[in-house]
Amino acid sequence: MADAVLAGAEGVLLDISGVLYDSGGDGGGVPIPGSREAVKKIKASGLKLQFCTNETQATRDKFVKKLQHLGFDITVNEVTAPAPAVCRILKERKLRPHLLVHDDLILEFADIDKTNPNCVVIGDAADNFSYKNLNDAFQILINLENPVLLSLGRGRYYKETDGLKLDVGAYMKALEYACDIQAEVVGKPAKMFFQSALTEMGIEPHQAIMIGDDIVNDVGGAQQCGMRAVQVRTGKYSIHRRVLHV
Amino acid sequence: MADAVLAGAEGVLLDISGVLYDSGGDGGGVPIPGSREAVKKIKASGLKLQFCTNETQATRDKFVKKLQHLGFDITVNEVTAPAPAVCRILKERKLRPHLLVHDDLILEFADIDKTNPNCVVIGDAADNFSYKNLNDAFQILINLENPVLLSLGRGRYYKETDGLKLDVGAYMKALEYACDIQAEVVGKPAKMFFQSALTEMGIEPHQAIMIGDDIVNDVGGAQQCGMRAVQVRTGKYSIHRRVLHV
Repeated sequence: MADAVLAGAEGVLLDISGVLYDSGGDGGGVPIPGSREAVKKIKASGLKLQFCTNETQATRDKFVKKLQHLGFDITVNEVTAPAPAVCRILKERKLRPHLLVHDDLILEFADIDKTNPNCVVIGDAADNFSYKNLNDAFQILINLENPVLLSLGRGRYYKETDGLKLDVGAYMKALEYACDIQAEVVGKPAKMFFQSALTEMGIEPHQAIMIGDDIVNDVGGAQQCGMRAVQVRTGKYSIHRRVLHV
Repeated sequence: MADAVLAGAEGVLLDISGVLYDSGGDGGGVPIPGSREAVKKIKASGLKLQFCTNETQATRDKFVKKLQHLGFDITVNEVTAPAPAVCRILKERKLRPHLLVHDDLILEFADIDKTNPNCVVIGDAADNFSYKNLNDAFQILINLENPVLLSLGRGRYYKETDGLKLDVGAYMKALEYACDIQAEVVGKPAKMFFQSALTEMGIEPHQAIMIGDDIVNDVGGAQQCGMRAVQVRTGKYSIHRRVLHV
């Protein structure tokens, strides 16, 4: 990483998927060459570091354990992720969610009232995105007087070791269209999400740099928030052909 | 049906799902009271009649047999449906489709070259809309230089006997968003689709009346085409709460 990029910065926000590692496969993923060393270097430099991810296929605990197993110097408190953020929102607004998420994420919602749902929370549910499950979520929304759809990110796709995979954003769009509503996005590129990461670090937007592989969710979102941003040429960047617009 | 509505008309285009019957259940559906008699009455009156459906869960042959079994006076030639229309387009443009459709529709594509696909055709695939199947379609599209997505309709949802079901439009939107492309819609409300139904009947738009339960696909589409249109208060009309905009 060129020192010039970091000039004047007090802290770094690091995306994880496609920047530190590519997910998928038996071992849960493969580190991107040099990324483990880069994390160590940033920490050694005295810069503050927060990991800022839209990962919703596992609880933060489980996700961090996987990354530690892959050799990364990372702890749970250093990770800003959508599920804990949405739980705060659910409690504040007294919302009782119907969950359309990955099985491994459900534990994050253990202390949330899920009876008689008055909203839907959608995450990267992967194989849980069956027709039946999407239809169940649709039926709940279409029958609500004021349908609330909270989406853990709005990514189009991500790269796994065996190819590109549809992300939560595609299914968010399906429900938005079917119900004629707009989802509220929790996670990147939402301003509030970046701000909570900055609060964790105790720094201002102009003192921070976001590093990610997604031009919309990482770079665009951070810039909207007043931060500088760098797009790395790994992850989905290395595959996709067309510039993405949201 | 009030005679005033039909004044000056030479022909009637009739939607099927939600107008003649509600699909679903063991018997394949339940006729809407009075609809069998209405079809007979239109035919007896000397008006031309063409059925104009976005139904893509079965071949036209199988679909018509089901309706005959339910007591409707209907033949294959009287039905304008998306699958035969898309087959004409595929041949004209030398497109080789990857199919994401209902199992019972596949026979319609028997004489279409499907090797080394250079486009995706999406229909109301219902339970075939698994994560894996949608991801397969996505991967084909994202790897094409010029991705072509042909969608058999753009409906949001339809009514079955046991409730509302997500229609092909929701999944079309998911793929459009993931790949940053626009689908080409074959079926209602596409102008070309209505025009081919009128050609079958040998009449002009101003001589025809479309009768359907969908404000966008039936009424809006027909009006765009220069026809008059009537929305019946059965099918999804009887359930949905919000006005639909496309």
